[in-house]
This record gives sequence, structure tokens and C-alpha cells, in this order.
Amino acid sequence: MALIVQKYGGTSVGSVERIKHVAERVAKFKMLGHQVVVVLSAMSGETNRLIKLAHDVQSNPDSRELDVLISTGEQVTIALLAMALKDLGLKAKSYTGSQVRILTDNAFNKARILNIDEQHLRADLDSGHVIVVAGFQGVDEHGNITTLGRGGSDTTGVALAAALKADECQIYTDVDGVYTTDPRIVPEARRLKTITFEEMLEMASLGSKVLQIRSVEFAGKYKVKLRVLSSFQDEGEGTLITFEEDDNMEQAIISGIAFNRDEAKITVLGVPDTPGIAYQILGPVADSNIDVDMIIQNVGANNTTDFTFTVHRNDYARTLQMLREMQPKIGAREVTGDDKIAKVSIVGVGMRSHVGIASNMFKTLADDSINIQMISTSEIKISVVIDEKYLELAVRVLHKAFNLEKAA
Amino acid sequence: MALIVQKYGGTSVGSVERIKHVAERVAKFKMLGHQVVVVLSAMSGETNRLIKLAHDVQSNPDSRELDVLISTGEQVTIALLAMALKDLGLKAKSYTGSQVRILTDNAFNKARILNIDEQHLRADLDSGHVIVVAGFQGVDEHGNITTLGRGGSDTTGVALAAALKADECQIYTDVDGVYTTDPRIVPEARRLKTITFEEMLEMASLGSKVLQIRSVEFAGKYKVKLRVLSSFQDEGEGTLITFEEDDNMEQAIISGIAFNRDEAKITVLGVPDTPGIAYQILGPVADSNIDVDMIIQNVGANNTTDFTFTVHRNDYARTLQMLREMQPKIGAREVTGDDKIAKVSIVGVGMRSHVGIASNMFKTLADDSINIQMISTSEIKISVVIDEKYLELAVRVLHKAFNLEKAA
Repeated sequence: MALIVQKYGGTSVGSVERIKHVAERVAKFKMLGHQVVVVLSAMSGETNRLIKLAHDVQSNPDSRELDVLISTGEQVTIALLAMALKDLGLKAKSYTGSQVRILTDNAFNKARILNIDEQHLRADLDSGHVIVVAGFQGVDEHGNITTLGRGGSDTTGVALAAALKADECQIYTDVDGVYTTDPRIVPEARRLKTITFEEMLEMASLGSKVLQIRSVEFAGKYKVKLRVLSSFQDEGEGTLITFEEDDNMEQAIISGIAFNRDEAKITVLGVPDTPGIAYQILGPVADSNIDVDMIIQNVGANNTTDFTFTVHRNDYARTLQMLREMQPKIGAREVTGDDKIAKVSIVGVGMRSHVGIASNMFKTLADDSINIQMISTSEIKISVVIDEKYLELAVRVLHKAFNLEKAA
Repeated sequence: MALIVQKYGGTSVGSVERIKHVAERVAKFKMLGHQVVVVLSAMSGETNRLIKLAHDVQSNPDSRELDVLISTGEQVTIALLAMALKDLGLKAKSYTGSQVRILTDNAFNKARILNIDEQHLRADLDSGHVIVVAGFQGVDEHGNITTLGRGGSDTTGVALAAALKADECQIYTDVDGVYTTDPRIVPEARRLKTITFEEMLEMASLGSKVLQIRSVEFAGKYKVKLRVLSSFQDEGEGTLITFEEDDNMEQAIISGIAFNRDEAKITVLGVPDTPGIAYQILGPVADSNIDVDMIIQNVGANNTTDFTFTVHRNDYARTLQMLREMQPKIGAREVTGDDKIAKVSIVGVGMRSHVGIASNMFKTLADDSINIQMISTSEIKISVVIDEKYLELAVRVLHKAFNLEKAA
């Protein structure tokens, strides 16, 4: 008998039929003798509908009241699932975040979980109940309703698994696991049976939107066994996220290829190469709440330096205009930009102990005349920025070059 | 400076525009220096939508989970109104029933309020906040969400007014007060400036659906000054429900004429006139959860008695069949019924101290050849059952006979 936390996203509970389907899946696990805690998101589209209502009432909705409003979405699905479970003859009980007492700080709309009181849940589990908990929400020390921000339901699932010392936290979504890359681009892409926590972090932050990065960090911190599964398939073991590199002796060098078309690049050419110049350029960008991703600085001619960084494409026009206004003050020769770029990254813990990975990547791209505009590396990933039009080609040839279509 | 509780029903908060309109009305009261507590229903249609969802999932929805589900309706409106109030520059804060701690018993779907913790509300009021409370809901001692049953928002309003010792509880609805009778039948019907609590109880239970009867009882018990107003008109003082008869020396003898087309009558003829016969007939009816309204027993011929009672028209066929099956056992000569009847009542505390009211009523009906089938009286009302086709005529001639078109 195991204790399993299962989290279902919005599309998995998007209709009465889907909710009944989830109930049947939960019943199967109960039948096997497991204890089950279910964490739910709101029905797909519901949170957006509520946010629109809020904006119709107040142009910049009050953050406390917004949480009161949008937390109703999960409250609806937990009640409906508990009913569906009872309809199958199971004992079930729903809990809002406040009823569990998922204690958070008071940062409305993006609260962080501080503590979970698991005693009541434990008692209900022991008396045979399926526990159905509203994801994404908690309560602060003054009883105010808080929400954890988009995708917070994953975090609720992992946090509950940690508090209850669950054997596994299963995240059900509309894909059946983590793939070596997007199968829509590379049909040979293969589902990974396991991926390490660190690889997952890199894959998630690079745009493989299977899991919220916060929930993965949380799982890492509390060593929660995390598995990604499809709620639309009845079979399949999904992808297990592991925390020990040597769990799998046959670990591939490269686990996957992530990519991202959401970025744009800004280049500041010929700035005086003096201390503090990076801060002079990037300080105002950060002050405007613009997130900067990659940053590269190169030595240029005549004691000047060239400076390139990437921002989200939505911030491109604003950032370019800001830099052009600053151009005289920082003494730059030219400010240019390009919003037709893409970032491609190979990710794998195996590259720590293998040499030649980067050169293999660069050669593969060069063989197809794909020009690399920027390079950035970390312990377990190498990212390059290329012209957007070569994105699919780059992903395909890299997938093949690193033999990702074959099981490790 | 007064402390006012205002309750707005579902049509008053049925859209973003209506919610903004409510905010403007509340702002007006704040501007006059009053403290305001607002109690809201769910947007019109929302509770029914949620109940339908529940029935789609479970044919007989679990009562605990149903309350978790439908309580979200009010949670949405309180958040939106608090936003609208902030948009007008006011301080505002929403409270769910659980956040106030409106403690109820644990009778899900029809809970009764046991206690209200008003300390936090008081502190927020004193710091200048408008308090926006979700009507219709509370929390039991174990933290389970409960609801008070249909129309429970009126009860929440009155209970808060009692707990906070408010100067007045204003119930905003889609009519501008209590009328002498339905203006659709008698165009000369007049809005009453005041009506006594007891008259209101009789009017409400007789089908004038302005206020929930439970909230009126509650107001009577705690001596809450209750006023019914229209949320669709900006002027008008509505109807004040009073608790002291001598508040108004010019009290009319008759305050209004109520009527009801929802009943049907069953007659059991020629049953042996023995002790316990009423119980023999009505016991099985009550056991089948059929509400009986009027009951009349007359002496018949040959030591037999005739027995007539009314039930809701929806229960007519079922009751008739039940009685016909019982006919041999109770030894009745005949069981007949009629579902084309109507009940008309004149209501007024003044009739206590005036004679001749009943005879005036009967003469008025006789003058227009309206046959009276049943009569029932209480301290402050006289009800008759007539053929349904004479209903409008009866209400019109009685309204004129008692001079109700003229202010008292």
C-alpha cells in the first residue's frame, strides 16, 4: 500500500465527462489498496474567465480580491470530483486551501507556501477517504485567501506530497511524459523514462512546459518522487524525475533538446570598455521589470566593447527604444536588435563527464550552414541563438546527431 | 452616523454594470458618513448553473460537497464588488462566510446560524472599510462550508445587522417595497410605507415573495429594523417592517391582500365521525412529505364527517391517489379533488380590534357571485378558497372594498 498524490490540470477536469474519467482513474488506485490525495486545477478556461471579469470591474484588480475571486475555480472542481468519487461508491472529501490550512505568506497572486497542516488529511486518509484538495491556493496567517500564481497547482501537489511523505507525486497533464524534444518537430522524439531533477529544471525553464519550474524546485528540495503522466491515456508510466544521477547507470549523455522562440536580442555596439558599463546598460532594463535571459559581452576595437542580451519578445520594442534613448549617455556607437531569433539548447547531466559535446553541437549546426549568433553554457546545457527560420532544422539535426531517437 | 447593512439579491449583482451600480449606491451612503456592511447573493442564474453541474456529476449530489460548490457563487460577487468599491476610491474588504466566521449547525444545504463573530468586522468598519460579506453561507464548528438554503442571503443580512446592532438592515430587491397587493392585478395597488412584522409574515407565507420568511422571523426575534427597497431605483424609501403596532396610530385595519394559485384541494366525504379520524387521513400524507396548508372538518349526515384540506398543486395527483387507495380502510363514502382553486387572504393587525371585517369580505365576494369554498382565519388574516377563475376579480373588489388604494 502506497500513499500517492495525483495532480490533474485544467484540461483533465475541463468537463463533467473528464471529471468522471478522473474519478475512475482514482478509483483504480484505491482498488489497488493505495491511499490517494488528489490535487485539482480549475476547469480549463475558468481562471481566465474570472480574471476577465475582474478587469471588467477594475482596470488593475485589487490583488487581495483577485485571489478571493479566482480561488473559486478550484473550489468548483474539488466539489465536483468529490461527488463523482462518491457516485462510484468511494469515500471522498474536498478541502479548499484554507480548509487544509496550506499556510502561505501574504504575497497575493504569487504567494509561497510556508507550512501545511497535514493532521486532518492523515486522519481522513486513515479512515479510507480520498482527499480532494484545491490546488493553487492557500491562506495567510490572518485568514486571507491567497493564490500561488499560474501553475501553482503543481506546487500544491508537490508540497502536499512532501508534507504527507507520499511515495510518489503524479502530475497528470495532456502529454504522456517528457520527450527528448517536441514530437511535432521531430517525429522520432522519444519519451524519457527518467530525467534528472536538474535536467528537468533546464528543460522547463527553456520552454518545455510540462511542469512548473517552481514545483520541480520544490520536489528537489524535499526529495519528492515526481512523475509526469497523461490523463488522456489509461496506460503508460510517464516520465519519472529522479534526484540521484547514478539511479540510472545507462544515463544518456544528452537527455533532450529544448527550444524557445519567445526571445529577441538587443545589441549595443562600441561602448567604452570601462568598469560598471554592464550595470549602466542593464540596470535601467531591470528597473523597468524587463527580464533579461542571455547576456554576452565581447571585446571590440579601440578599447570599446560589444554587448548583447536577450529579452522576451513582448519586451523587445520597449527595450530597444529605452536603449536608443540611453545611447548618447552611455556613449555607444550603435544599438541594434533582432526579434527573429530562436534559442536551441541541448541538456544532459552526462555532459559533465564527457568532453566534445559542445564541438559536436557546433559542427552539426555548421554542417547545415546554420550560423550561431550567441552561445551560453552551464554545467548541464549548451544554448545557442540562431536565426528563427533555422529552428526546426537545427532541432532535427541535433536530435539525430546525439542519437536521441534510440533508448539509452 | 449610522451603521447600515445592505443586502443585494442576484439580479442586483447580475452583471458587471449592475455591480458597479451597487458600488455607486454604497459610495453614496459612505459619503453621508455612514458605516456600511454589504451582503451579496450570487449573480442571478449562477447558483442554478452550479446545481445543474452537480446533478450532471451525481444524480443526488452529496450535501456537503454541494455547499462547497454553490458557495463559490457569492465568493465571486463579493470579490467583484470589493474591486468596484476600490475603483471608486473607497476602502473595501470582502469576507466569505467562513472568514467572518458565521458559525452554523452542520445541516448542509439548510444550515441555521448559531453565532456571528463580529470583532474583525467591527475593527475594519472603524478603520473606514466597507465590508462585503458573502450571503447564504457559513461554516460549521469543524470548518466545513455550509449554506443556509435558498434566500439565505436575506437571513445573513439580518443576522449581521443583529450581531453588529446595526441601525437598519436594507434589503434591495427588484421591487421598491411591499404593496397592498400585486399591481399587475390591481393597478391602484399602493406601496406601504410600513408594515408590521406579523403582517409581513402572513404576506410572505401567503406568496408575496419580497422577503424570505426566515429572515423576517429572524428580524423579529432580534428586533432588527428591516427595510425593503428597490436596487433599480435611486430614490424611494421602500417599506419599513415595524415591530410595534402602535408605531403608527393611523394604522389601517387591512394592510394588504395576498393570494396564491399554487394549491389544490382534496375532499374526503362521509367518513365515520370517530376520534383519530383526522390523524388517520393526514398522518400518511405527512409521512409522504406532503405539506398540508388549510384543513377544514365539517359535521355531515348520519354520524359521518366531511374533511377537506389543501396541498401544493405539485402534490395534488399523488395525494389524490393516496387517499383513494386509503378510501376503503378509512370507510369514506367518496374522495374528490379540485386543482383549479385559488386562495385569497386579507391581512392586517387592525382586524384584531375591529369587528365586521370577515362579514365585509364575504359580502363583497357574494355581491359579485364569487362562491367561497373554504374559510380559514387567524388573528390577523382571513383566507378564503375560491374558484381560480375568479381570482383577479376577487382581489380587485376586495382591494376596493377595504379602501386600500388610499393611504392610511
